[in-house]
Amino acid sequence: MSEKLEQLKEKLGEVADIGRAASVLSWDQQVNMPPGGNEARGQQLATLSKIAQEKFITDEVGRLIDDLKQELDGVDTDEAALVRVAARNYDKAKRVPPSFIAEQAIVTSKAFEAWMEARGKSDFSIFQPHLEKVVELIHKYISFFPPADHPYDTLLDDYERGMKTADVKVIFDNLRPKQVELIKAITSAKQVKDDFLYKKYNEKKLMDFGVDVITKFGYDWNRGRQDKAPHPFETTFSVNDVRITTRYEGDNPLATLFSTMHEAGHAMYEQGSNPSYERTPLAGGTSLAVHESQSRMWENLVGRSLPFWEHFYPALKKTFASQLDGVSLKTFFKGINKVQPSLIRVNADEATYNLHVMLRLELEISMVEGKVAIKDLPEIWNTKMQEYLGVTPPNDAKGVLQDIHWSGGAIGYFSTYALGNLVSAQLWEKINQDIPNLSDQIRKGNFSELLAWLRKNIHQHGQKYEPQKLVETVTGSRITPEPYVRYLTKKYSEIYGL
Amino acid sequence: MSEKLEQLKEKLGEVADIGRAASVLSWDQQVNMPPGGNEARGQQLATLSKIAQEKFITDEVGRLIDDLKQELDGVDTDEAALVRVAARNYDKAKRVPPSFIAEQAIVTSKAFEAWMEARGKSDFSIFQPHLEKVVELIHKYISFFPPADHPYDTLLDDYERGMKTADVKVIFDNLRPKQVELIKAITSAKQVKDDFLYKKYNEKKLMDFGVDVITKFGYDWNRGRQDKAPHPFETTFSVNDVRITTRYEGDNPLATLFSTMHEAGHAMYEQGSNPSYERTPLAGGTSLAVHESQSRMWENLVGRSLPFWEHFYPALKKTFASQLDGVSLKTFFKGINKVQPSLIRVNADEATYNLHVMLRLELEISMVEGKVAIKDLPEIWNTKMQEYLGVTPPNDAKGVLQDIHWSGGAIGYFSTYALGNLVSAQLWEKINQDIPNLSDQIRKGNFSELLAWLRKNIHQHGQKYEPQKLVETVTGSRITPEPYVRYLTKKYSEIYGL
Repeated sequence: MSEKLEQLKEKLGEVADIGRAASVLSWDQQVNMPPGGNEARGQQLATLSKIAQEKFITDEVGRLIDDLKQELDGVDTDEAALVRVAARNYDKAKRVPPSFIAEQAIVTSKAFEAWMEARGKSDFSIFQPHLEKVVELIHKYISFFPPADHPYDTLLDDYERGMKTADVKVIFDNLRPKQVELIKAITSAKQVKDDFLYKKYNEKKLMDFGVDVITKFGYDWNRGRQDKAPHPFETTFSVNDVRITTRYEGDNPLATLFSTMHEAGHAMYEQGSNPSYERTPLAGGTSLAVHESQSRMWENLVGRSLPFWEHFYPALKKTFASQLDGVSLKTFFKGINKVQPSLIRVNADEATYNLHVMLRLELEISMVEGKVAIKDLPEIWNTKMQEYLGVTPPNDAKGVLQDIHWSGGAIGYFSTYALGNLVSAQLWEKINQDIPNLSDQIRKGNFSELLAWLRKNIHQHGQKYEPQKLVETVTGSRITPEPYVRYLTKKYSEIYGL
Repeated sequence: MSEKLEQLKEKLGEVADIGRAASVLSWDQQVNMPPGGNEARGQQLATLSKIAQEKFITDEVGRLIDDLKQELDGVDTDEAALVRVAARNYDKAKRVPPSFIAEQAIVTSKAFEAWMEARGKSDFSIFQPHLEKVVELIHKYISFFPPADHPYDTLLDDYERGMKTADVKVIFDNLRPKQVELIKAITSAKQVKDDFLYKKYNEKKLMDFGVDVITKFGYDWNRGRQDKAPHPFETTFSVNDVRITTRYEGDNPLATLFSTMHEAGHAMYEQGSNPSYERTPLAGGTSLAVHESQSRMWENLVGRSLPFWEHFYPALKKTFASQLDGVSLKTFFKGINKVQPSLIRVNADEATYNLHVMLRLELEISMVEGKVAIKDLPEIWNTKMQEYLGVTPPNDAKGVLQDIHWSGGAIGYFSTYALGNLVSAQLWEKINQDIPNLSDQIRKGNFSELLAWLRKNIHQHGQKYEPQKLVETVTGSRITPEPYVRYLTKKYSEIYGL
């Protein structure tokens, strides 16, 4: 067996290397590449992706997986997990014909261009025929897989291994009325002050402040770096080279800080993966939701908490004396946690964010079920926005056209954002049981025990466990909304005096 | 035929894409990578290199090349050149077994470490056994190829397509006495002043000045960028993404400027390659010597010329007023052209540089002929240094251990540096015939006609022509030392009043 395992690991290692190489090329494209480089880079990435696929779905890899799967059936070792994850990925990859991938690349490439134009002109009709084609392809994609309980399950499973549409629906149906109710209570209360957030803040000083914060968090600069890019993201070239990007948000300068913490949360997850998983399908975060639980934890549960700012606010105030003149810690803390139902998901606060996601999930499920005509999406979008958030987009650019995801065929992705929030709160309750004085530690700018806990319970396991299983093992419960509701209710009751 | 050509181009395109991807990874390794990333990056590069090789030397590619070669025999089109170059590369790649490549990787990896240690301790005996193994492998490598006129031909051909050892010997035997004689005359003359070069120059201002210079040269920033790296180099990711690196030379700040011009010379060559050659073996520079002719031309024939500094010196003097206080244009010009026989090749001036190269070539040929024992290299080195340059290294670090090349198995490379100098002067004579007022243009900071000439006569042809053939077509003569000797003699006669 050991020999076959070595053979399999060698093959998978090559595939992983090609994938990592592609990540370097993509990172460079977004961070460094001169404008002229675009066309060739697209070609290079297409070639790498094609070769990675070719190298993965060979008959030899299939045989090795089959043989090893039988021998390791029911075993709970890293090796068995490796073979299980490889088998799952292999099966998925095998089912999708290369001709489909090529077709999808062409359709989504055109859809992306149309979306850009449609958003620029705020005219959904430009995007509509392209989205119709994307959805057609999504149906075709689903048809390659055995029938699931719900056709959307097939999509969801690509982003959130093992998650079922029915599970998400139960979770969200439970969560929605509570979030809607909380928001109603908040919007009836006296609004907090936050004008000081929108003053001019020096970019360099703000960036430096962010670097200080994530250094204290424990982001390892020997195994990472931060660059500027049009969009903040995290990317992994190996467990020992995990990079993040940031940007200066001119309209909302402090957002730069929170986005840095967010990406560092992703990056520390990747830096904490078991090094022995390198070049195998076990390396890195286990799902988008668990990944998002890490980024949102550092951004929100840590980064927007009062203890955090008890530590950092004096330094921030010293750095930005004029901007924060007369702004007390309490006022600052309330300001960065202001709740205000709004139109754009990526700018939404903690209390309203999940509702943006739920709206999208419902539309996606309807699209997959064929129960909605694409042309009707803008109207349905606007109706739901009014129902959930009490706001109505003035145009499609600020409504149904705001997200890039659908143009790229990424249907099935959105719910992981909200699930990540829920998981972050579940973990947070458990962490605070295990580290009773965590708030005091944070108040002192000490994050090492928190990071060690995450390393031990979440990070090191890489992709060994399915997300629901991992969450259950650590917290005693599968993904559930109660801790998040408790967290939101407590936090905002204090801030808004509910 | 057209269909087979398309098939071949598709295969070669993939191989090219993988090679370019590897270049991105290497660039990143030297420019950005955090220390932790090293091991995984080595693995990723090894995988890409292995796959590129596998994809290239398939039977299918071999058949396509054979079929097309017959049909295109004697034809002088781009397509025929493409097939000829591909056939040559294919034959070379096929002859070297993967097991040899793996063995060489291990031997040179250890030899590199030993060389680092030996150089640090200035103790050749640490490097000696490793160099012996490297030379053994070189003999083995040569044995894979059909017997040539001289065994060294096989090595030389890898760096300088079509060049023969006998040709280089004739060229160098002709050149050596003239350079030795010139240097003797210079060292008997009154030495020029250059102390102002070694003052402290602000790094940022110097870098900015370099950027201004190469922008005027015509380096296209839309299709390139410059970063800092431990060593200056040029690298190509596509004809539309050609990057350079620079470093600040603390001991010799102005060297930063000349090295920037040098790398920009390489880069403009690559930027000027015919775009239709992209993703084929015709893309990029045709040989190391021709490449070096471009870098050395911009660095020396342009960048160390009086007309160049007539244009740029006022701005330099304004930028570095205190450093250049009281330094006239003439004094500055003489200072940057000071000739002083010295120990280290990379710091050598134009008049002595080639002699460093000749010494290495002679030792390499002796090694390949088996006429020299590796243990005797330091002594032979020192003897020849005294003979050619009148200086003797005080230790091996400043003698036989100074260059990295042998530790990596790069035997056959050195002569291209000197050949590049010769080609630069050959081209320069022809350019000045074709553009009689070139000096006036340079004096006005106008380089567009020069670059256009190089684009038309050299750059656009990529690898279509063998270097000797290209030089002959353009100048009417194969590579020859006379123009370089004329250039040196004229220049230094004026500077040193010979």
